Amino acid sequence: MSAPLAEFELIRRYFSFAAPRPDVCLGVGDDAALLRPPPGEQLVACCDTLVAGRHFPFGTAAADIAWKALAVNLSDLAAMGAQARWFLLALTLPTAAADWLQDFAGGLRQLADQHAVQLVGGDTTRGPLSVTITALGSVPVGQALCRAAAQVGDDIYVSGYPGEAALALADILAGGDGAGLRERLDRPQPRLQLGQALRGRAHAAIDISDGLAQDLGHLLSASQVGASLDLDALPWRQERPRDLAAILQGGDDYELCFTWPPEQALPATDVALQRIGRIEARAGLRCWQGGRQVDVPQTGYQHF
Amino acid sequence: MSAPLAEFELIRRYFSFAAPRPDVCLGVGDDAALLRPPPGEQLVACCDTLVAGRHFPFGTAAADIAWKALAVNLSDLAAMGAQARWFLLALTLPTAAADWLQDFAGGLRQLADQHAVQLVGGDTTRGPLSVTITALGSVPVGQALCRAAAQVGDDIYVSGYPGEAALALADILAGGDGAGLRERLDRPQPRLQLGQALRGRAHAAIDISDGLAQDLGHLLSASQVGASLDLDALPWRQERPRDLAAILQGGDDYELCFTWPPEQALPATDVALQRIGRIEARAGLRCWQGGRQVDVPQTGYQHF
Repeated sequence: MSAPLAEFELIRRYFSFAAPRPDVCLGVGDDAALLRPPPGEQLVACCDTLVAGRHFPFGTAAADIAWKALAVNLSDLAAMGAQARWFLLALTLPTAAADWLQDFAGGLRQLADQHAVQLVGGDTTRGPLSVTITALGSVPVGQALCRAAAQVGDDIYVSGYPGEAALALADILAGGDGAGLRERLDRPQPRLQLGQALRGRAHAAIDISDGLAQDLGHLLSASQVGASLDLDALPWRQERPRDLAAILQGGDDYELCFTWPPEQALPATDVALQRIGRIEARAGLRCWQGGRQVDVPQTGYQHF
Repeated sequence: MSAPLAEFELIRRYFSFAAPRPDVCLGVGDDAALLRPPPGEQLVACCDTLVAGRHFPFGTAAADIAWKALAVNLSDLAAMGAQARWFLLALTLPTAAADWLQDFAGGLRQLADQHAVQLVGGDTTRGPLSVTITALGSVPVGQALCRAAAQVGDDIYVSGYPGEAALALADILAGGDGAGLRERLDRPQPRLQLGQALRGRAHAAIDISDGLAQDLGHLLSASQVGASLDLDALPWRQERPRDLAAILQGGDDYELCFTWPPEQALPATDVALQRIGRIEARAGLRCWQGGRQVDVPQTGYQHF
């Protein structure tokens, strides 16, 4: 049992940890943060909420909740090719228990330190557990990766191994411990290094939060193009048979899907990249398997 | 009854309204927004959450919830002397009902248009009703109003009529309709014009969200000073007897409290300003009434 804490004490004790970035003029503790955006760059801003029981299973460790809440936002910055700089945390929780908060702050700090992003402000409120993070970064003008810039003839690539988070979640919901893939669900790795390597060179990009088929569909719609997808090329590293539904409809992997001019060499990156299809002029997503076209539902995670 | 909506349709239908600002390069609809901060200014960022039943009474109109969620954030920008530019909305709601969303978007748009701020991104999730907004603005370097800059000998001023929101809330919780002050609770006016008029000239500022005594106490602690407060000077415009507890401990007014070098003339503003005390070297807040020092609890709204 740990005692409840006043908001100010709570913030001071648990959320004053981040190593100071030189571009933070005033961080946590005033009415707002004062930040110095790099001259000549665009500001990149995004915001995502995780709700207990919906975006993570009840009983998820506090450190993992914090990690994931930051990771999904850094993933959005990665999908724009941005450099991550700062974030704000809005934390709603039923009670301010010291041990839970210490674990939460620890998870947050671990990922923040990995990418040198600094917590600069936020709010703590009492209510049903949920975490909203706003991430801020920057990108040189004209180099951001947008959804709407795919071109006919582009190769389509995906990073990592989409589907593994869905396998973990299915196993947990069935009473298991995550089938050895719990970390893929709880601690996704935002692909910031990859996003920055792609910027100014890849044509379009999106991060896979709601499922490869659905998120690729958003990219195609935004770019007013279609695509052929080679199901046999989809990456898979599990020993069990390939689970196409997990790969195509499973969310929560936070890999990047991007389109790339075929004549260019791929950049060196810290993550596996796999060519999975090609952008075509005709709208829609056409899936191929063993040389035949097959029907694949383009649904994924539904927010409502 | 209105049908539930998919997230994408929901965003497209209700949250694509804002008049495009020229400093928004890419708004709602991609992985993140692309914004152009003004050269030579600091970025100002803050984030506040409203939880149903805690920060607004259950049954509050959707338009009022939206207004207040944006207002409390714009108020934080005002307290820094910033110009408001953009905001992100994280909306968690039990069901995506079209009529509720339409009202919510309407209230949001009303206040956003008044201050020419643009919705540039966010997230909609399913869960217990809560609203988190991140507001972004800018201020010329060196001109931000901080809590820690009060100087001994400064006059202390407050804008408007703190305490009216608390009177409204007390009446509603007692079954009334807000004692004619419902709008002061539901639709606070962020003092952006005042904040900008003060910047570079006032020494320290804070917005009153948790009660005048408590928030002024934060300013004093941050500045490592104390103050004398003249209770007889506290502004009050109601016909009923002055309610000192409402003025000093009532939250939710979002007026500004600031310290000002006494030799300078006050700026012309759109809101009443009242001198209520003076900054002193000795720590602590001393309250005076009818020439005698009186004890006043410095508590206010407690988040936990």
